[in-house]
Amino acid sequence: MGIVEDMKCFMEPKSVALIGVSRNVDGDSFNPLKNLINYGFEGKIYPINPKADEILGIKTYPHIRKVPGDVDLGVVITPRSAVPARVKECTEKGVRAVIIIAQGFADSDSEGRMLQEETVRIARRGKTRIIGPNTFGVINAYNGFSTALPHFELETTPVGVISQSGIFFVGLSDIIFGKAIDVGDCCDIDFADSLAYFEDDHDIRVVLLHMEGISDGQKFFKAAKRTSTKKPLVVLKSGRSERGGKAAQSHTGSIVGKDEVYDAVFKAAGVIRADDEEEAENLVKSFLTLPLMKGKRISIMTWAGSTGVITVDACEKYGMDVTDLSEATLEMIRKLSPPQWLPLGNPVDIWACMGLKGFNLERFRDEFKIILDALLYDRNSDGVVVIIPDFLALFSSLWWDVSVSVKEAAEEFPSKPIVFSIFGPKGDLAKKLTETGKTLVFNNCERAVRVLAKSNEYYEFVQRNQE
Amino acid sequence: MGIVEDMKCFMEPKSVALIGVSRNVDGDSFNPLKNLINYGFEGKIYPINPKADEILGIKTYPHIRKVPGDVDLGVVITPRSAVPARVKECTEKGVRAVIIIAQGFADSDSEGRMLQEETVRIARRGKTRIIGPNTFGVINAYNGFSTALPHFELETTPVGVISQSGIFFVGLSDIIFGKAIDVGDCCDIDFADSLAYFEDDHDIRVVLLHMEGISDGQKFFKAAKRTSTKKPLVVLKSGRSERGGKAAQSHTGSIVGKDEVYDAVFKAAGVIRADDEEEAENLVKSFLTLPLMKGKRISIMTWAGSTGVITVDACEKYGMDVTDLSEATLEMIRKLSPPQWLPLGNPVDIWACMGLKGFNLERFRDEFKIILDALLYDRNSDGVVVIIPDFLALFSSLWWDVSVSVKEAAEEFPSKPIVFSIFGPKGDLAKKLTETGKTLVFNNCERAVRVLAKSNEYYEFVQRNQE
Repeated sequence: MGIVEDMKCFMEPKSVALIGVSRNVDGDSFNPLKNLINYGFEGKIYPINPKADEILGIKTYPHIRKVPGDVDLGVVITPRSAVPARVKECTEKGVRAVIIIAQGFADSDSEGRMLQEETVRIARRGKTRIIGPNTFGVINAYNGFSTALPHFELETTPVGVISQSGIFFVGLSDIIFGKAIDVGDCCDIDFADSLAYFEDDHDIRVVLLHMEGISDGQKFFKAAKRTSTKKPLVVLKSGRSERGGKAAQSHTGSIVGKDEVYDAVFKAAGVIRADDEEEAENLVKSFLTLPLMKGKRISIMTWAGSTGVITVDACEKYGMDVTDLSEATLEMIRKLSPPQWLPLGNPVDIWACMGLKGFNLERFRDEFKIILDALLYDRNSDGVVVIIPDFLALFSSLWWDVSVSVKEAAEEFPSKPIVFSIFGPKGDLAKKLTETGKTLVFNNCERAVRVLAKSNEYYEFVQRNQE
Repeated sequence: MGIVEDMKCFMEPKSVALIGVSRNVDGDSFNPLKNLINYGFEGKIYPINPKADEILGIKTYPHIRKVPGDVDLGVVITPRSAVPARVKECTEKGVRAVIIIAQGFADSDSEGRMLQEETVRIARRGKTRIIGPNTFGVINAYNGFSTALPHFELETTPVGVISQSGIFFVGLSDIIFGKAIDVGDCCDIDFADSLAYFEDDHDIRVVLLHMEGISDGQKFFKAAKRTSTKKPLVVLKSGRSERGGKAAQSHTGSIVGKDEVYDAVFKAAGVIRADDEEEAENLVKSFLTLPLMKGKRISIMTWAGSTGVITVDACEKYGMDVTDLSEATLEMIRKLSPPQWLPLGNPVDIWACMGLKGFNLERFRDEFKIILDALLYDRNSDGVVVIIPDFLALFSSLWWDVSVSVKEAAEEFPSKPIVFSIFGPKGDLAKKLTETGKTLVFNNCERAVRVLAKSNEYYEFVQRNQE
């Protein structure tokens, strides 16, 4: 069997044995059997527990060899000392895929390392693949499947994650992962194998990697580069610092190499690196929602001169160009009759252009759109950053709801990204802008610019690697 | 009169003339007279408009010289060309303080620069002080006073701001400023003068500065250092980059010097610099809410090994020490019976220490507090970073509400800061933790660590400069 078929045993099993599952099914009892029933998983479930005949009405077997049918996936939930024996029984039953939940292997002491080596040896001999140890296993919301101990909400989103930590199974602030693989200590199945599953998976459009370390750089590089030409990969790599590397060693037994080496591999493979989990989430959202940034030239539309200055700083910091607007664009803006003395250029100051002659509220959204359209139409511009306060949090009239104008503009110019940074208290405007599905709203302009810079990094990779 | 008395004419006027105020008082008409009535300002208000006898029932004068009583503050709302004449009339009336709202002075063309010079000359001769031009003026929620054109919510918070942009008058995400001074183009009153007002002001405990440039570095340095020994000053300095500097020049006419020079001045004056508005807000909140971080030694309590690793990276990045826990602390944690093989140390892995033996939900909050207490009690630790998911967003039982334990621990150890980073979806726990008033919750651990690092920077400044 190839790796994709192996991975399907983990992600899309027809039958699963929960080896050592507990009889405790109380409130938050972290019982994966209870979870699977709850999710409505339609495959066969075989609880294995010598002390029970049934759990939650599901026939329970004392031993995996007593299970009548085939088992695609075995989930071993026992403490570490029992793991090698349980894995051996799986191989004897012909189980092709095993998830080992327990911690205490390469992530702990010498006995743990020995147990891990023994387990791997047994699995290799039996041609059984392993995810883990030290893992929550997998989530596949598309078939109501999860091996995680806690009960997490499942949602069929187009975002996948490959992590070395179960914490990612909770999702990010606003993103639930439709499919998740916690490779844990990576004793067998690794990032490259998991990427092979996602490469041609039509459910998943963007994949986040949370990585502490990899052992086979060449294998990862090949898999990542092949996948990232098809869909964006975002990576959050930790254990960057010396002490962080030691912490990673004790967390997942990872051998953490020099951070610059990882950086170079990610760059060459087109994997977009995020500096923190917030940026990781921003990047995933941008790849889902926005057209790619096809050049480095940014135009800025700002409610206040000050936030324009801050955004210009951010552009320089992230290697983006504050573009010189074309004469045609300036001509369009002049139609709004800004004061003669106003120096027109990039950033475009909305307050000065529209407000100094006195706001005409009924015209506000139209005038806002005239500027936005002009910037999107401008050949010198590849994308637009807009910095405004949340008008609807500040003012009473609905004339301030510019989300309609933004949606229209985005639909007229579908190839250029528009991003917002909302300054100050958040009200309904941020929500309405997000709900258009055509733009993203960030907490500060620095983050807005950074997302465009990294979107452009990915665009350039794809261009270089087109067939 | 000294500068503090001058500043009080701006911030606490007994009488104010609104020179050139509009008769338009519609919905969002940006009419400062309407705003003052709304706020219940109790000083005398004199609208000046030759085309009206009254506006909103307030007697209106054709000219400031017709006003019967004294005028502490004149707010000039006319276009730029009329400004010098209106300021001259103010000096003739004996008005000591004038705010010039209009743009189009040093921030624009040569005519604007000439108008500004002329205005300053007139004011100097008449011993009148000016805030602006290109400003929203001031807000003082403590006496229901604002000269800003838009109507902003006022709130008597202990946070002040001195900015070069009216956008700050809207507040930050969660912070409304109790007092605000928009120094605008700084033709007269500058940051140092404004700091003099805040230095001994008992309403304001923390001051944020938004700065594009200053002309008199020595004056600023003295005022800032004097003030920052009494209360924390946080600065957001923009126009860092070359192009950003040019943008600042065209926004406020600021001469923006080398960023490293500003950096050095801030450091020497004990002014804590934020890299973006989000960090500025985090720092302000930390100075309001948390004890100062009295050393560099951080202990980490984490739900997942992975977020521990990420936090260790952040500590190294910001020059903080991942402390070695004392034997007594490890002994306390061992009482929770973590697995023998678990390598105990900093970061402390909650899941491994408390969960691997099976969670006892009714004991969860107590065990959580045992670890937190041990870390706070540890002599090797100056502050604690806790990284957890929002349990209440994930799980059903209220036993997961650790905010009670955190509040108690914080009250028992009031001299060490506790900060949280919540990973994943936000639910009630983040809110409950914040509502204790004893801790802060950040969007990622990097931000949590950074706040502690800068809190320590301020602590060290205060130590060095104690009398």
